[in-house]
Amino acid sequence: MFDPASLKYDANGLIPVIAQDASSSEVLMMAWMNAEAVTRTLQTGRVTYWSRSRKSFWIKGESSGHVQELVELRVDCDRDCLLALVRQTGPACHTNRRSCFYTAIREGEEIEIMRPMV
Amino acid sequence: MFDPASLKYDANGLIPVIAQDASSSEVLMMAWMNAEAVTRTLQTGRVTYWSRSRKSFWIKGESSGHVQELVELRVDCDRDCLLALVRQTGPACHTNRRSCFYTAIREGEEIEIMRPMV
Repeated sequence: MFDPASLKYDANGLIPVIAQDASSSEVLMMAWMNAEAVTRTLQTGRVTYWSRSRKSFWIKGESSGHVQELVELRVDCDRDCLLALVRQTGPACHTNRRSCFYTAIREGEEIEIMRPMV
Repeated sequence: MFDPASLKYDANGLIPVIAQDASSSEVLMMAWMNAEAVTRTLQTGRVTYWSRSRKSFWIKGESSGHVQELVELRVDCDRDCLLALVRQTGPACHTNRRSCFYTAIREGEEIEIMRPMV
């Protein structure tokens, strides 16, 4: 049986989680979970992070509607990072872009490579 | 001009970096950089992390030959996470698997979904 307590959390009790679109394979965002958020994510199928700024559980999309439905959770070799394959409704980023990684560094300059979704 | 000092580093001066295969879009690993590692990665085109265990720069593949050639570095909306698109030679994982995320959680059990490369 998988036990969320078997993961390695940082000094704040958190583990980084990469959210990847399960169909397009696009990396959407990176956020954090504590052990309880891992448990809730697996139990509900709704990706649930720990908001470091608000210090509370953050059911992704709960207010925006831009939910992440969990397809599969994966653990890395060191057990200190998670990869969540998700079905993302709408934009993953709070800037309304599909992915948070919309800024590329090209020839030393920052270039915006993605526009907000309408 | 992009300035590595403009990124947000954690209390240890580090920023998480997701390495993604530029052609297959597979998420290969997650590791950490400090500002100098970001600079070196951009200057050399060889992905260079900061090893938290060895407390030294870690030019990925320097000893194993499993190098990561940088295709593009991207910054997220909060400037506290990087996405490195790479050309990965051989396995990215020290267990000799292509990706570090070779363990899936399915129906509450941990399942190995990837074998070591020969």
